[in-house]
Amino acid sequence: MRMDEMSSAAFAEAVKKDPLVFLPIGAMEAHGPHLPLGTDTFQPEFVVNAVCENVGGIIAPTINYGQHSSTRNFPGTIDISFDTLRSLVMDILDAFQRNGVGKVVIVSGHLGSVHRAAIKLACERAARQGLKVMFLSDYELAYLKKTEVCEGMPDGHGGIIETSRIMDIRPDLVSSERTEGGFVDMRFMVRADAESCLPQGFGGDARKACKEKGRLVNQFVVDTLTDLVRKNFEG
Amino acid sequence: MRMDEMSSAAFAEAVKKDPLVFLPIGAMEAHGPHLPLGTDTFQPEFVVNAVCENVGGIIAPTINYGQHSSTRNFPGTIDISFDTLRSLVMDILDAFQRNGVGKVVIVSGHLGSVHRAAIKLACERAARQGLKVMFLSDYELAYLKKTEVCEGMPDGHGGIIETSRIMDIRPDLVSSERTEGGFVDMRFMVRADAESCLPQGFGGDARKACKEKGRLVNQFVVDTLTDLVRKNFEG
Amino acid sequence: MRMDEMSSAAFAEAVKKDPLVFLPIGAMEAHGPHLPLGTDTFQPEFVVNAVCENVGGIIAPTINYGQHSSTRNFPGTIDISFDTLRSLVMDILDAFQRNGVGKVVIVSGHLGSVHRAAIKLACERAARQGLKVMFLSDYELAYLKKTEVCEGMPDGHGGIIETSRIMDIRPDLVSSERTEGGFVDMRFMVRADAESCLPQGFGGDARKACKEKGRLVNQFVVDTLTDLVRKNFEG
Amino acid sequence: MRMDEMSSAAFAEAVKKDPLVFLPIGAMEAHGPHLPLGTDTFQPEFVVNAVCENVGGIIAPTINYGQHSSTRNFPGTIDISFDTLRSLVMDILDAFQRNGVGKVVIVSGHLGSVHRAAIKLACERAARQGLKVMFLSDYELAYLKKTEVCEGMPDGHGGIIETSRIMDIRPDLVSSERTEGGFVDMRFMVRADAESCLPQGFGGDARKACKEKGRLVNQFVVDTLTDLVRKNFEG
Amino acid sequence: MRMDEMSSAAFAEAVKKDPLVFLPIGAMEAHGPHLPLGTDTFQPEFVVNAVCENVGGIIAPTINYGQHSSTRNFPGTIDISFDTLRSLVMDILDAFQRNGVGKVVIVSGHLGSVHRAAIKLACERAARQGLKVMFLSDYELAYLKKTEVCEGMPDGHGGIIETSRIMDIRPDLVSSERTEGGFVDMRFMVRADAESCLPQGFGGDARKACKEKGRLVNQFVVDTLTDLVRKNFEG
Amino acid sequence: MRMDEMSSAAFAEAVKKDPLVFLPIGAMEAHGPHLPLGTDTFQPEFVVNAVCENVGGIIAPTINYGQHSSTRNFPGTIDISFDTLRSLVMDILDAFQRNGVGKVVIVSGHLGSVHRAAIKLACERAARQGLKVMFLSDYELAYLKKTEVCEGMPDGHGGIIETSRIMDIRPDLVSSERTEGGFVDMRFMVRADAESCLPQGFGGDARKACKEKGRLVNQFVVDTLTDLVRKNFEG
Repeated sequence: MRMDEMSSAAFAEAVKKDPLVFLPIGAMEAHGPHLPLGTDTFQPEFVVNAVCENVGGIIAPTINYGQHSSTRNFPGTIDISFDTLRSLVMDILDAFQRNGVGKVVIVSGHLGSVHRAAIKLACERAARQGLKVMFLSDYELAYLKKTEVCEGMPDGHGGIIETSRIMDIRPDLVSSERTEGGFVDMRFMVRADAESCLPQGFGGDARKACKEKGRLVNQFVVDTLTDLVRKNFEG
Repeated sequence: MRMDEMSSAAFAEAVKKDPLVFLPIGAMEAHGPHLPLGTDTFQPEFVVNAVCENVGGIIAPTINYGQHSSTRNFPGTIDISFDTLRSLVMDILDAFQRNGVGKVVIVSGHLGSVHRAAIKLACERAARQGLKVMFLSDYELAYLKKTEVCEGMPDGHGGIIETSRIMDIRPDLVSSERTEGGFVDMRFMVRADAESCLPQGFGGDARKACKEKGRLVNQFVVDTLTDLVRKNFEG
Repeated sequence: MRMDEMSSAAFAEAVKKDPLVFLPIGAMEAHGPHLPLGTDTFQPEFVVNAVCENVGGIIAPTINYGQHSSTRNFPGTIDISFDTLRSLVMDILDAFQRNGVGKVVIVSGHLGSVHRAAIKLACERAARQGLKVMFLSDYELAYLKKTEVCEGMPDGHGGIIETSRIMDIRPDLVSSERTEGGFVDMRFMVRADAESCLPQGFGGDARKACKEKGRLVNQFVVDTLTDLVRKNFEG
Repeated sequence: MRMDEMSSAAFAEAVKKDPLVFLPIGAMEAHGPHLPLGTDTFQPEFVVNAVCENVGGIIAPTINYGQHSSTRNFPGTIDISFDTLRSLVMDILDAFQRNGVGKVVIVSGHLGSVHRAAIKLACERAARQGLKVMFLSDYELAYLKKTEVCEGMPDGHGGIIETSRIMDIRPDLVSSERTEGGFVDMRFMVRADAESCLPQGFGGDARKACKEKGRLVNQFVVDTLTDLVRKNFEG
Repeated sequence: MRMDEMSSAAFAEAVKKDPLVFLPIGAMEAHGPHLPLGTDTFQPEFVVNAVCENVGGIIAPTINYGQHSSTRNFPGTIDISFDTLRSLVMDILDAFQRNGVGKVVIVSGHLGSVHRAAIKLACERAARQGLKVMFLSDYELAYLKKTEVCEGMPDGHGGIIETSRIMDIRPDLVSSERTEGGFVDMRFMVRADAESCLPQGFGGDARKACKEKGRLVNQFVVDTLTDLVRKNFEG
Repeated sequence: MRMDEMSSAAFAEAVKKDPLVFLPIGAMEAHGPHLPLGTDTFQPEFVVNAVCENVGGIIAPTINYGQHSSTRNFPGTIDISFDTLRSLVMDILDAFQRNGVGKVVIVSGHLGSVHRAAIKLACERAARQGLKVMFLSDYELAYLKKTEVCEGMPDGHGGIIETSRIMDIRPDLVSSERTEGGFVDMRFMVRADAESCLPQGFGGDARKACKEKGRLVNQFVVDTLTDLVRKNFEG
């Protein structure tokens, strides 16, 4: 069930049964020349829809913007600050709790460590206020398939796995002209031109991407998350 | 064009032509028993899509949450604070400017005065930094049709006009069981139970709503906004 | 009774009777060439004094500065930020509550929407903490007389009504050389030069102002507010 | 000249001559059973008026609330936080600078160290932005007369000097029933009941106060400050 | 050179040569029953001293407190908030830059992801202001030796490597009674009792720790960091 | 006992006996050409160590950075903002309280009034939460010896007393080439070049300093503080 399609009364009724509420967190972020800016929105929305079909629950409207460091200077990255993101998640979780919601699953498409720290702090506060809250990036699961899918090649932002996943979810938005993106080790330097760690704007051999790999990874993410959600909230 | 469907390169190319960027601001807010919680999201998205078709431009992803006072205690209202909303709009406008965007149109579905003050402050700051920015709630236009559509009856949140508009946009989400919602004058008292100004959770005779009235208002809003945008940015 | 003239002991004694406490909020704002910068201070102080004489209570010291958008760039406007104004009102209301005050009436001279949003947020917080608090700008009442006093002419900031009111309250401070101020429709553009909506620095035909009109409006504001205060706090 | 009585145009004209702007900072603070809550407002307003008559300049509206620690729990103390006070002074100084004001003299009636730290930080920021700003509490001057006026007796908040000064400025507000207030050494303990350092709510033998002593001290403060202002801004 | 032992003049002289400034960040954190609370302070101080001997530079005073999530509820963990830590590092980096320092190396003993996000954000801001800044936790290097030192056993907070390192640095502070600490998978749940992921308060078989392993790891960290610093700042 | 050398278990055990916890606050601040930047760290650490030996208790790790105004522009002063310092002390006191600590003694080497206001506000908050907290700068005691030690000469920052104290504590860090530092009266002006009040970077005749004077003052500070601590916490 999509929360934005429910009436106030229907929502109040649904909350009485202590449902799971899913909160997808997307992003507007450059993902190389072959992927759309909404890549990190399409993926968690896909995952949340599928998992919600498996386990039931309510899907809250997506947070469409996130915090970005390394891709911040690429065209089309619309980043919000750490503080804004943290406040946004805090406020939404507070409102959920005030509404009687007791169980929340947050899935972020973007994997950035600072981005996730902002969300984690908001979750910690909600947990101290009594909320049962689960938080992950679907990439924490998707990259478990890296060895299998990428055959030992380095892969990352906008690489084989991400391109494949979008080819499965929104094939119309993936360019057929794809190349390989390299990685530059920053050796712990924190730089104003952090994007220089991704000289092509993405990392991995996007030519190796295909819909089948995407389907495999997406299915794995959905199955694994379904299982985790069941164990965490039903067990 | 939807921004989330554009690649980084396509966006960079598009920005060179100094396009309009539209930012819809929605809400998750109780609108009486007959309307969906996403009412204030569906309307500005509809309006922005239609205006953008008329005048061209890029549609950025929707901000799906807003600030609420009087409906805050009704089930399903998920409100974010003044500060969070202001920061969110500030950050997004900053990122637009850093990306070279020069013209932004913000359309909010929710009409609350504090909600709009938050967005306005963010716009003022962006304007001082050089952005050409237009901001309105589509209800500032829609209510110009109040006399014509409501025949002298009081109408407001979730009333004739709003119900009619959603019947035009998302008829599947409007309940056919509708009643009349009253208004209680708060006489300038600021109360913790501010929702008591709307005893039924909405205001106006929702039974009088119909798709035709909705179409009339929606068309008026789109036409008027199209005209205003042209005058403001093309003139 | 003026609070600043009471001793600590006298105040403690007075609070036991659960008195109304009035908090006037003024401003330092350009009001065209014919009115003083303190226009929005003189008016609420006048109103509060008169209402307090009618219904009893304690008058707290005036907040002498407010938040301004459209007149911010005119000489003599001394604006404080939204956050500062909100904090200031919050802190004062908190201190009132800590002192056992249970009923507060806030009257702001300035009518700006962002200015009022700041005060309203502070009032909402106090209300949730148990304070009975009433908040209005005296212009929300004064403008009810617009049709009667201005004979269909557009009137606003520093116009007929405001000039007339100051002619009644502080005639020594109103210039006899007065002209007409125009209005420019900003068409929802949020501009850095927001003052361009008032090319002469005020809006309305100030030549039409006179002491009698001022007295009429002031009396109406005082009577109406007296009545509202009685209904809200005594009923 | 009082700024609130000047028109925008008159102010703009006056600023061209690079005038001094005086900003009095008052307080709403318990001063024992014999003095009014506005004691720390009446004094700096008196001083500023007198000095301004000597050296010329513009008097801005008073900030009527301050930050309090030791008297916070006494009835009638309306304290604002450190942050609010600092922001308030910052915003006002910013607005002065935006208006072209180059020289400001701030006189606070309240002598609290944390209160003054808030104002000082705001002044330091303004100074770094180019403002010539002088800041003192008139008690930094008044207490220079302690030995002469108090004949070796301990004297402080609401004591001989303060009572005498108010007897000179607002004799109608000083009670004729006065006693002696003791001091308790807190030995560097920071306590929630900080007011226990003043068991009677004031410190010093208020019976020894008289109008003549007040006049002497007030004259000294005015003369000394006049001299300091001349040296600082005219030299 | 220790900065706290240098005079102002000596520091000014040294800065002219564009030296490296090292900033160690420690913590006060529970590390199981066998390790001292200052474990995460002793390690980066040791590392920084050794690296500074190799490459030269100035060592700034240690930040002795950090941000903690999972160990927050164990006795002796003194955590500061994300915001405080970020501000602290920001302010210090700002002051370094104001002093003409151009190259900074920050080494944190604590590896927490939120803790590091706070420091990283401060570094990013400084980098945008022109500072060349390197930031890492020495554990990002130390754990490269996990396979070699722990022989396939899971190891973490207060485990084999950490215990061994402290046995090398401060053998007097390591208890000889040591046991094994387990790990509990939180399955992405964010919990108020986050410490339940470490039922014994540490993770790994601390009985397997010894001074020799500690020396090996410490030497590896020092050598690797020396090399990285040279490449980053001298190349 | 140093807290950083205690294990979690040992700390938990010690806290049961309701011990004093000492928190030294140091600084990195220019103290003229003859004294080290860590002067205000060495002194409170010395004092706290000695007092703790007399009365028992636990010494928490030093806060190594403080807030500075007048010396901010001298080389080597690393200042943190008022807000950062306040938050840092707040967070640490909160964590102490969460750990069951009930008695804290804070000794700051730096005497700045704004610096102390930040710490005082943090202490006031903790006191309201139930902590017994004592806060002073050791210079509030040391300067009680000014008449005796300085023979009527003006003395201050980096002068006779401070130089003498460091000659007693860290004689290796005091230069033998010492001169006299003058004082310039700022006449209440708040200036961007606040350091001009100390033309030589310190104030007082540092040539008159000697180890014996330092020992005398240090002994006096330790004895007096020992006595005060006993009276405050044991009485």
